[in-house]
Amino acid sequence: MSLLVVGSVAYDGIETPRGKVDRVLGGAGSYIALAASHFTNVRLVAVVGEDFAPEDEAVLRRRNVDLEGLERAPGKSFYWKGVYSRQMNRRRTLVTELNVFADFRPRLPRSYRDTPLILLGNIHPELQDVVLDQAPDRQYVAGDTMNYWIERTPGELASTIRRWDAILVNDEEARQISKQDNLRAAARDIRSMGPNTVVIKRGEHGATLFHDGQCFISPAYPLEDLIDPTGAGDAFAGGFMGHLASLGLGNASEAGIKELRLAMIYGSVMGSFCCERFGVEALKDLTKDRIEDRFSEFRQLTAY
Amino acid sequence: MSLLVVGSVAYDGIETPRGKVDRVLGGAGSYIALAASHFTNVRLVAVVGEDFAPEDEAVLRRRNVDLEGLERAPGKSFYWKGVYSRQMNRRRTLVTELNVFADFRPRLPRSYRDTPLILLGNIHPELQDVVLDQAPDRQYVAGDTMNYWIERTPGELASTIRRWDAILVNDEEARQISKQDNLRAAARDIRSMGPNTVVIKRGEHGATLFHDGQCFISPAYPLEDLIDPTGAGDAFAGGFMGHLASLGLGNASEAGIKELRLAMIYGSVMGSFCCERFGVEALKDLTKDRIEDRFSEFRQLTAY
Repeated sequence: MSLLVVGSVAYDGIETPRGKVDRVLGGAGSYIALAASHFTNVRLVAVVGEDFAPEDEAVLRRRNVDLEGLERAPGKSFYWKGVYSRQMNRRRTLVTELNVFADFRPRLPRSYRDTPLILLGNIHPELQDVVLDQAPDRQYVAGDTMNYWIERTPGELASTIRRWDAILVNDEEARQISKQDNLRAAARDIRSMGPNTVVIKRGEHGATLFHDGQCFISPAYPLEDLIDPTGAGDAFAGGFMGHLASLGLGNASEAGIKELRLAMIYGSVMGSFCCERFGVEALKDLTKDRIEDRFSEFRQLTAY
Repeated sequence: MSLLVVGSVAYDGIETPRGKVDRVLGGAGSYIALAASHFTNVRLVAVVGEDFAPEDEAVLRRRNVDLEGLERAPGKSFYWKGVYSRQMNRRRTLVTELNVFADFRPRLPRSYRDTPLILLGNIHPELQDVVLDQAPDRQYVAGDTMNYWIERTPGELASTIRRWDAILVNDEEARQISKQDNLRAAARDIRSMGPNTVVIKRGEHGATLFHDGQCFISPAYPLEDLIDPTGAGDAFAGGFMGHLASLGLGNASEAGIKELRLAMIYGSVMGSFCCERFGVEALKDLTKDRIEDRFSEFRQLTAY
C-alpha cells in the first residue's frame, strides 16, 4: 500500500562534535521518504530549486521513491545550517534560507490522488490541509508540526489536526499545543482536538504512544556511536507510517494498539540508524535484514 | 534476606508547583528504607538529632525498619530545603544544614554485621567504605554517589566503588564519573572501575541497566498527577535492592540479568509511587497488591 509524503527536500549544513558536512541532502521529506521506502512504496510531494543535483535525486530514485510530485522551481533549494551541543541533545540554527520553499504550494499529480496513507511533514498547516483536499481516497493521515506554526497559526493548525488520525510531535510541541506540562494530560487534550493516536517523540529518551486509553513506551536504542541526530524524528515517522503501510491497512480504524506498538518500534529502529551517520547516509543502503536484526535488539532492551 | 541501608534521615522543606511542605521526614535513608521495607527486612544505619520526632520514628517502625542502627546525637537533624521548576525536572537547593550529619561516622550494631545485602546511600565515600569494613558477611553491595563526591573525593570514591557489585547513579553522575558523554561508553568505563552492574537513573525518562554485555531499559511510569519527585531515585534504589533481597539472593553472582530486569521494574514501580504524594507519604501505606498491580501496568507499557 502506497504512502504519500509531503515535506521539505533541502540542503543541510550540519556540525556535531563528531564532524561537519555541508550542502548534503536533507529536509524532513527526504528523511521520511528514505526511511519509509524500506517498508512500502513512497510518493513524494516537495519542491527543489535549480541547484538540486542529479546525484541527490538519484539517492531517492534508487530507493524507488516516486518523484512525479517533486516540483522544480526557479531559484535555489531550501538551505538549513545548524550546530549541535556536546551531548547533541540541543542544536542551534545558524542559517535558514527558505528559497523555493517560501512559495511552495503542494500539488498532487493525478497518479497520487488515490494514495490511502498520508504523512504530512512539518509545513504550513494550511498547506497540510491543501494536500488532504487533493487526496479524496485517503484512509489514514498522520502529521507533524512545530513551535513556529503552533505560535503563529494556531487556528489553521487546529483545522488540519482535526482531519488527522495520528499526530507525531516532540514533547515540547505536545506541551505547547495543549498548554499542559504533564505529557499524559497533553496527549489527552490533543486527542480531543482530533487525532485518535498521539505519538510523542522524545529523542534520546525514546517515544511514547497514546491511543484510546492505552499508553506504550518505546525505548531509544542506546547508541555507542552517535554521529548526527539530524532527521531522527523524521526517520522515526517514516518507519512508523512505513510499517502501517506495509500491513496493507484497509482503513484508519484498523490501526489498533497492536499494530501501533510495532510501528513505534520500527520508527525507533529507523531513528536509531539515522543517527549513526551524517545526514541521510545511514538510511540509503539499509537492508531488511539489518532492520529486522535491530528490531530484535529492541525486544531485548525491554523484555522481562 | 535482610538489607542494610545507610543514608541520611533528614527533615525536608519541599516546594513544587503542586504545593509546599516543611520539616517533613526525608533523606535518602528514609526513602530507601521505606521503599525496600515492602520487599524485605531493612536494617537502617543513620544519625538524627534531638529534634527527631517520635511520630517520624514511628513511620519507620510501622514498616518494621530495624532502628537499632539509628544513632541519636546532640544537635539538630540534617535539614534540606529545595524548590522545583514548573516541569519538576529541575530543582534548586535553598538550604542545606548538615547539623548532626556533619560528624556522622556509621557504626554497625553487632546484630547488623551479618547482613548479606548492603545499599550504600549517597554519603562520603570514605564512610561508605567504613560500612563495608564492618560487614564481613556481605554478599552483594550496591551504592549511590553524587557530583559533590565525584569532584571532591575521586580517590576515595574509586576505592569504595571497587568493592561494589552495583552502582546506581543518575545520567549526569555517570557522565561525570567516566568523563564520557555517551551513556553506553560511560557504563563500560564505570564497569571497568569495579561494579559488574551499572544502573543509570534517568528520572522522568526511566532507567537503564548495563550488566555484562547486556542492556535493559525500564520506562518511567507516565504519571497523570506528579506531585513531588523528591526521593524518587532513592525509592527506585529501595525497590531494586528490596526485590533482590526478597529473592534470598545467595551471592553476588546469582544476580543474573533476569532478576536484575525485574529489580529494575520494581525500582521503577516504587519511584513512580513516590512521586504521587509529598515526601515519603506515598511509601508509607502501600500494599503488596498495589505494587503488583503497578508492576502489571509496567508490562503493558512496553509489551509488543
